[in-house]
Amino acid sequence: MKIGIVGGTGEIGEGMALRLSPKYDVIVGSREETKAIATCDTCRKTLQKQGLACSLLGVSNQRAVDEADIVVLAIPFKHVVPTLKALTGFEDKIVVSPVNPIERTTYFSYAPPPEGSAAMMIQGMLPASAAVCAAFNNIAANKWQMIEEELDYSVAVCCDDDRAKQSVMDIVNNVSSLRAYDAGPLAAASIVESITPLLLNIARFNKMRDVGVRFI
Amino acid sequence: MKIGIVGGTGEIGEGMALRLSPKYDVIVGSREETKAIATCDTCRKTLQKQGLACSLLGVSNQRAVDEADIVVLAIPFKHVVPTLKALTGFEDKIVVSPVNPIERTTYFSYAPPPEGSAAMMIQGMLPASAAVCAAFNNIAANKWQMIEEELDYSVAVCCDDDRAKQSVMDIVNNVSSLRAYDAGPLAAASIVESITPLLLNIARFNKMRDVGVRFI
Repeated sequence: MKIGIVGGTGEIGEGMALRLSPKYDVIVGSREETKAIATCDTCRKTLQKQGLACSLLGVSNQRAVDEADIVVLAIPFKHVVPTLKALTGFEDKIVVSPVNPIERTTYFSYAPPPEGSAAMMIQGMLPASAAVCAAFNNIAANKWQMIEEELDYSVAVCCDDDRAKQSVMDIVNNVSSLRAYDAGPLAAASIVESITPLLLNIARFNKMRDVGVRFI
Repeated sequence: MKIGIVGGTGEIGEGMALRLSPKYDVIVGSREETKAIATCDTCRKTLQKQGLACSLLGVSNQRAVDEADIVVLAIPFKHVVPTLKALTGFEDKIVVSPVNPIERTTYFSYAPPPEGSAAMMIQGMLPASAAVCAAFNNIAANKWQMIEEELDYSVAVCCDDDRAKQSVMDIVNNVSSLRAYDAGPLAAASIVESITPLLLNIARFNKMRDVGVRFI
């Protein structure tokens, strides 16, 4: 199973590369291939210190899409449209969206596009044979990168394709102590995305850091 | 501190009466006072078996509003408008909304009114001096009633009035093992309300029961 990370040199992308590459072949994509290669070098060193072997390849975003079975869009919401317009080859891929459209005023609020959620917008921009899954939306970027820390959170997964959903849930359940929950169809992803501004508000108004969520 | 429960004979209302009356003066309201009195009798017996003293009074919904400092609207979303239209006297009261507007098709989705949330709609229907707080939105009705079970959940509280918010958070923190979190202004309540259909989806699609949430 090859996992490509579009935007793999960003904070969340690099953190996901760290967490996923000991178990999967991870292809780190970037607009600049040299940056992707540098990120892979950094990740390898970090993982070596933990005594962990890994499989990492630094390439362009396009090659990350082309070579992967599962493509993670580890990019901020505002970069989704220009990034997807510049890429092709999503046919028959599983596409994971951890993207959350958020606005900040005196507090954080959920600011979805007209399609209802980032996930639904992404599905609309990709070929019909691409299966978009919302997943990993509610994990703080910092927590991805602290490789020595356990990720002990729940992860809600929304998708319209049952096989794609199961593949993504299996990956979730393979990362640290994350637990995947089937949260219904992609149309339900808006709720999952909106939890992130709630967690940011809770962190801010209760003097906490990197708040996550558990369903119990 | 007197807490009035409008709709106090419903499943959530009765559960809240059980959980709150050992610590606060609870005034159970109903459209039919005889039902409210019967609910109070049932609650007293249940609490006696647990060796707990309580303060319970069964009255009409209107009297529950009139006599309480804090009024909980323990009613389904579809009953909010007719119930509030029939009641007066909310001036200077703290009004707690655990109300969630939910639609069910093949899954549960969040279906807020044009105001953006049940909480914002309720604020718009009440006098300006009433302080509406969204709280207790994400706790399953069943769990309220199982008095011998610990409620070990997080409770997000949204309100525009800091003193009212603190009063409600203090009550939350006095119930079982609930923990209150300041989740920002009332405008942020839509996210809190929307977590309930997410929890219902997670219960349904993962064969779980009475799913709740923790922020960690």
